[in-house]
Amino acid sequence: MNIALDVMGGDHGPGEVIAGAIEAAQAYKITVSLVGPPDIIRSELAKHATTGLKLPIVPASQVIEMGEKPAAAVRAKQDSSIVVASRMVRNGEAQGFVTAGNTGGALAAGIFQVGRIEGILRPALITPFPTHRGFCVILDVGANADVKPEHLQQFAIMGSVYARHVMGVNNPRVRILSNGEEEGKGNQLVISAHNLLAATPGINFQGNVESKEIVEGMADVVVTDGFTGNVFVKTAEATAKLLQRVMLEELTAGPISSVGAFLAQAALRRLRTRMDDSQYGGAVLLGLAGMVVVAHGRSKANAIRHAIRVAKQGAEQNIQVKIQEGVAESAPRASRLGDSAMKAVPT
Amino acid sequence: MNIALDVMGGDHGPGEVIAGAIEAAQAYKITVSLVGPPDIIRSELAKHATTGLKLPIVPASQVIEMGEKPAAAVRAKQDSSIVVASRMVRNGEAQGFVTAGNTGGALAAGIFQVGRIEGILRPALITPFPTHRGFCVILDVGANADVKPEHLQQFAIMGSVYARHVMGVNNPRVRILSNGEEEGKGNQLVISAHNLLAATPGINFQGNVESKEIVEGMADVVVTDGFTGNVFVKTAEATAKLLQRVMLEELTAGPISSVGAFLAQAALRRLRTRMDDSQYGGAVLLGLAGMVVVAHGRSKANAIRHAIRVAKQGAEQNIQVKIQEGVAESAPRASRLGDSAMKAVPT
Repeated sequence: MNIALDVMGGDHGPGEVIAGAIEAAQAYKITVSLVGPPDIIRSELAKHATTGLKLPIVPASQVIEMGEKPAAAVRAKQDSSIVVASRMVRNGEAQGFVTAGNTGGALAAGIFQVGRIEGILRPALITPFPTHRGFCVILDVGANADVKPEHLQQFAIMGSVYARHVMGVNNPRVRILSNGEEEGKGNQLVISAHNLLAATPGINFQGNVESKEIVEGMADVVVTDGFTGNVFVKTAEATAKLLQRVMLEELTAGPISSVGAFLAQAALRRLRTRMDDSQYGGAVLLGLAGMVVVAHGRSKANAIRHAIRVAKQGAEQNIQVKIQEGVAESAPRASRLGDSAMKAVPT
Repeated sequence: MNIALDVMGGDHGPGEVIAGAIEAAQAYKITVSLVGPPDIIRSELAKHATTGLKLPIVPASQVIEMGEKPAAAVRAKQDSSIVVASRMVRNGEAQGFVTAGNTGGALAAGIFQVGRIEGILRPALITPFPTHRGFCVILDVGANADVKPEHLQQFAIMGSVYARHVMGVNNPRVRILSNGEEEGKGNQLVISAHNLLAATPGINFQGNVESKEIVEGMADVVVTDGFTGNVFVKTAEATAKLLQRVMLEELTAGPISSVGAFLAQAALRRLRTRMDDSQYGGAVLLGLAGMVVVAHGRSKANAIRHAIRVAKQGAEQNIQVKIQEGVAESAPRASRLGDSAMKAVPT
């Protein structure tokens, strides 16, 4: 098992990324290929005891910066760390790649270099989302701004495979994000997709879901288009940050503000631990011929380690094969059923 | 000035609604028509000193319940409080109506009974949204699940009129909700609408906005389709509730939990006051021939009073006329410009 790691991605620099690679190589007994400028990698490796670990250096001289147009940059910078890492997956030299860099760059490298699984119409970005009970997964959160019902059907199948084999959820409950939980609520896309999903074998579809119920933990897999999904996760994140800031202000504004500050800091620390999704390894681009994991830019060594674990686990579980099988089994039958189901939608 | 009030809406019953009507009649020196079963209204009025206040009783024998299908219920129950109130607006007997009942019922009554302003393609639901600095307004939050760019253009015009004349914002900054702040980000709808909005005179359009920036207070008017807008406000609300619950759990979990609980309760109380939108009167259905205000189901007397104020203020300011003028001035020119602007969008 070989996972290629873009050492140049991430807000904390190559030191943190390489520390995560060392942890992963040690914990999971796998090869982690370190892709980037050899001198930087060598000097970081020298700070650790790495004897016996499989950490080959794969040279890459360029970096895609955060401000660059992803698709153009991936095409232009053929020796960038992310393109070299993705090419290793395409050539079968690695089973997956991990980056904490530019999400757009990872998407472009994944789609152009690694390529889609046969039968997959659109790869989708899946991410864990915290609920009161634990975590669910939501897809698509940004790879496809405009989709059709049959894309959402494939997202449901891919999400179910991911929840089962990577998140360890038995018979994951699939729901579609809507503006009301009742059947018949939604925009045209959701209403059409609802009927198609209800007629799709091999998934445990339970209907519409609203944000409130997602937060309550009523779904294991939330299916949505990449525009709505992106707005959804960003709104939750922005609201959580605002609330934490305002709570901190209010807790430290009272007459016994030092006690309030102490308690607030401790509570916020526990809150962050509880909502911490780093062990789930960030977002994964599902539907490609290899595992492509996009760790948060803010990833520390521990989060990088888990992102590598997710890539390894997906590769070991043959997620690609299971997705291909799932789509082959469910979708052709489903699209026949779906056609008639869709005709029943009132217009 | 006469505002019709559906006394049968709201979670706290007619007593709370009527108390709000009395406060409003007193504070704003206007007529508030109390629409509902006369015996209930009389017995509630008897609990207050109402001498000199203009609070006529308008009989209505039916109620639309929360579980009913709104459009069907509005058609079937012609003597329901919400239908009678909306009919008063249609007939010019009242300048607006206020309800804290079923939002769907209010939309149906507003659209079927009150009717649209000439030139308005789609009425839209607008609501205040808390930011770190204060409040912005967002529309549509649920009246139209599927829209076209020209609908979003009208929402921008209506939202600007509302922000200026009801929220008191000078030269309101209009932005469109997207999955990225950069121009060119968005789904097809947003990209087309962005170009149309940029070419619309009479509004202060500043481009795309993400959730993070809305929360930071970077927009006064946020324009979006009713599906995304509904998901947006519900996600923010659900996340805020989850965070408050988890913060309370964490603050009371520590070794000095009683102090934590005391501080947390006080901080949460201040937080809720700070985020309290009751003075903005809930959601308003813009684009109709009269003011239609949908107060929160949870409205207490004070929130009902403010909802009545919003209806009164909108009517006094001739919001309907200003919207009609705005659309007549901006949209025809804009749609000519918009056509050419839209041709420039890369496909």
